[in-house]
Amino acid sequence: MGEHTVASFDEELEHIDRLIRDMDELAAAMVAASIRALLASDNAMAQRVVSDDAIMDARQRELDDSAITLIAKRQPMAQDLRAVVGAIRMAGDLERIGDLAKNIAKRVSAVGQSATPRNLSHGIDAMADLVLVQLRGVVEHYVSRDAGALKELRADDQKIDVKYTAVFRELLTYMMEDPRNITACTHLLFCAKNLERIGDHVTNIAENAYFVVTGQQLPADRPKLDETTMSAPAT
Amino acid sequence: MGEHTVASFDEELEHIDRLIRDMDELAAAMVAASIRALLASDNAMAQRVVSDDAIMDARQRELDDSAITLIAKRQPMAQDLRAVVGAIRMAGDLERIGDLAKNIAKRVSAVGQSATPRNLSHGIDAMADLVLVQLRGVVEHYVSRDAGALKELRADDQKIDVKYTAVFRELLTYMMEDPRNITACTHLLFCAKNLERIGDHVTNIAENAYFVVTGQQLPADRPKLDETTMSAPAT
Repeated sequence: MGEHTVASFDEELEHIDRLIRDMDELAAAMVAASIRALLASDNAMAQRVVSDDAIMDARQRELDDSAITLIAKRQPMAQDLRAVVGAIRMAGDLERIGDLAKNIAKRVSAVGQSATPRNLSHGIDAMADLVLVQLRGVVEHYVSRDAGALKELRADDQKIDVKYTAVFRELLTYMMEDPRNITACTHLLFCAKNLERIGDHVTNIAENAYFVVTGQQLPADRPKLDETTMSAPAT
Repeated sequence: MGEHTVASFDEELEHIDRLIRDMDELAAAMVAASIRALLASDNAMAQRVVSDDAIMDARQRELDDSAITLIAKRQPMAQDLRAVVGAIRMAGDLERIGDLAKNIAKRVSAVGQSATPRNLSHGIDAMADLVLVQLRGVVEHYVSRDAGALKELRADDQKIDVKYTAVFRELLTYMMEDPRNITACTHLLFCAKNLERIGDHVTNIAENAYFVVTGQQLPADRPKLDETTMSAPAT
């Protein structure tokens, strides 16, 4: 196989990496905007997040098409095939993150102007901050092929789970205090759950990126719990 | 291209279709068992659903490996490539359905023995029935290459959404009536939402299957609403 072919394959791979980076930036922007819209009851901003999701879907289709064409045309072996398949999987997780941000945005009008208690907005905001650091970091570490950082990042997902459990409990308490809070709190509960799930997708991306970079699987037994599913039954 | 090569490619495609069918059967069994466990507070049955998810993950990996190897080895063109890529996407949706069933199963102990009002269990049960008919039907129609049935099936997802909206409202009412119901109802709310999302994944499968069978995309503007995100703000 000549130099030319090899260089061109690398260029095509770089194009795919660039699409991954674009999707990651868009995903992070959507998550940040959906939470800002939620906490500020900003319906116009929420509407923009909903529209952005169509752009995300189009980018995923573009990436899928490039990747599949690349596999069919070049029959890459081992490491190269791993990189292309890894990119398809990462794009799938990024697209799901966009969907979840859209779902948060669609709840903005249902939550409405009802004053969210300060503790609660603080908790959701803090969850979002953790998620965004992870989401921006994971693709950065992938692009710089930093396996160590990817491994650490996966471990950090637990911090998001802990925050989610705290927010979940706070929401339940708030609902019990005053039934008029129930509708809004229910939507906030789904929003918090969506953030937690975005964290899970970031973890998937980290695992795929680690596999692309090293050829090894990260050990599967990451301690992963949504602790709220373990809480005591209602009495 | 000789007869032999063509036959062998078809055999490999059939192997992939068989894996899709296996995954679909497992997904349907997991969904059915998770709802039975939920409504009967059967922790042992719930535990089996959680274990089954590992089998599902292994099957998806097997399918992905077969499909990617097939693409790399044979460089299929147009229709064949579409079938292989379609299978990878359908397997991704089936795996997510398994995850959602596992998530329902994990909530069984949190919902506990608290008597679920008859209306509510009836609503959840009816949702699950609709979802199961769809889930079993979609792969059947794919395997028999029945484009018309796939199109109709997608339209039926709206029935699930309507049921979900009714269950959602009923759960809110029940929480407002008595704050002691809030914890259990919150978990039931996530279970109902998971069923609604399983319906969305079945829709994705129908769209992918339709594309494999016909080479055409189903029109994108299916009227899709989770109406609960549109409900009036809490007062």
